[in-house]
Amino acid sequence: MKKIVIVGLGLIGGSLALALKGFEDFQVIGVARRQATVDYALEHGVGDEATLDVTAAVRQADVTVLCINPVDIVTFLAEHRNDFKPGSLVTDVCGIKSAIMAAAQALPPEVDFIGCHPMAGTEFSGIEHAFAEMFRGSHLILTPREDSWEPHVALMERMAAYIGCQDVVKTTPQEHDAILAYTSQMMHIIAVSVCDDPMLFTCKGFEGSSFRGCTRVAALDVPLWTQLFSLNAPALTACLDVFIDNLKDYRKVIASGDGEKLAEKLTWSANRKRQMDLPGPDLLH
Amino acid sequence: MKKIVIVGLGLIGGSLALALKGFEDFQVIGVARRQATVDYALEHGVGDEATLDVTAAVRQADVTVLCINPVDIVTFLAEHRNDFKPGSLVTDVCGIKSAIMAAAQALPPEVDFIGCHPMAGTEFSGIEHAFAEMFRGSHLILTPREDSWEPHVALMERMAAYIGCQDVVKTTPQEHDAILAYTSQMMHIIAVSVCDDPMLFTCKGFEGSSFRGCTRVAALDVPLWTQLFSLNAPALTACLDVFIDNLKDYRKVIASGDGEKLAEKLTWSANRKRQMDLPGPDLLH
Repeated sequence: MKKIVIVGLGLIGGSLALALKGFEDFQVIGVARRQATVDYALEHGVGDEATLDVTAAVRQADVTVLCINPVDIVTFLAEHRNDFKPGSLVTDVCGIKSAIMAAAQALPPEVDFIGCHPMAGTEFSGIEHAFAEMFRGSHLILTPREDSWEPHVALMERMAAYIGCQDVVKTTPQEHDAILAYTSQMMHIIAVSVCDDPMLFTCKGFEGSSFRGCTRVAALDVPLWTQLFSLNAPALTACLDVFIDNLKDYRKVIASGDGEKLAEKLTWSANRKRQMDLPGPDLLH
Repeated sequence: MKKIVIVGLGLIGGSLALALKGFEDFQVIGVARRQATVDYALEHGVGDEATLDVTAAVRQADVTVLCINPVDIVTFLAEHRNDFKPGSLVTDVCGIKSAIMAAAQALPPEVDFIGCHPMAGTEFSGIEHAFAEMFRGSHLILTPREDSWEPHVALMERMAAYIGCQDVVKTTPQEHDAILAYTSQMMHIIAVSVCDDPMLFTCKGFEGSSFRGCTRVAALDVPLWTQLFSLNAPALTACLDVFIDNLKDYRKVIASGDGEKLAEKLTWSANRKRQMDLPGPDLLH
């Protein structure tokens, strides 16, 4: 039986271990750093097996999925470069790709690496919040190397379909990081910045779905997001500059009292949003 | 049979007409400006009756609920001040309260007015998007007059319970407008400002739930929100100033490369969010 080894059984790794169970002829083996996590995984069927012995697991892996923080991925690739099976595939799930693809250069030529980022998650952390349905309807982004083996890309696509992803989007690490600064990282900076307002604690009872939708992700995993923001600082600050300018433009029109101009500006923005026509979640409560 | 007259059968008025059907011994009568809306309401059972004749409807109303845009409410109160039945209650559903409560001073002393704002809605407009469950789990904010009749406040509370509101929050028009600038109006300015980014149309396939949650409301009802922003401009611009400063603080720390300070700042913000502990919608897809 072939083996998928999932290194790191947190929210994403745990959910992946649940979602991948039964995939083709693969056995799903989870690797954790703490015995308590291994026990939890075994007890709740998170993957088919769970272990603390990362080296032994990686040595028998046909696919290794690194579900740990970006900086830990970099370290892991260097430390375990000689543990991966020749011909095997290594991949990850983290929200930054340039730094990861650079670190993957450390691997021997007979080990393939495909960067991966499933656009899924919740504002919680840890295996106890993992659930098999997490990836349903989400995009899976792949950043294959130029010389990645086509059967490995095809395997990733079948895995994506199996866990319920809506589609697979292939791109370069650079494009991924530039766009993700906008669609993901900036959304988190917005959420925490809204929550920094002194009014936060007096607004209970006055919040609706727009407030909940915007601030949900503020309760973030600090080490993870510190790394993501830091590793993508130039792209993120560039996005923030555009956003702050756009906010200031709205502030100016609102302060001017020119209702006609405000309506014109809102029409423009609202039409852009309608044009984009994103399928949205049901956010009514 | 007593009568609730709902003036304006748009998204909120239509949903209210659906949700209030069967409430105690009240008949629910919807008033629209266009025959097509009246026909739709009659055909789909939006309320028990529907009519174009607003004056006749208001004259027999025990409760009149104004579900029209803020500026139209101001005009309506002045124009129909002598049409309301003595002893009857007039209320509204709009997202601004100071301007509405001031306009309600035009009513004769024997007509009661209680400002009302259900914290519910979607990004759509019009009766065809109305649904009875809209108010389930949401807050209903009331701004009664100092001399509002207690039985009218109690009636509003029973109506809130009947349509499924989570709770009823009473406040002053001033406090309502100060807080709503933060929890609602600013969320809409954030959403449109994010969508003004040139990257919007290239980011398809790269967006996750945080992006959808933050930008969902950008496809807004322009006349309505132009009025809400304009009528609350001082409070809204004050909120935007605080928010822009908070964003700039984050931008500065990210640009500095000081990971420790960034982690500290994120910990502070994330803890505030956790402390607030809002019940959130399920936003996983």
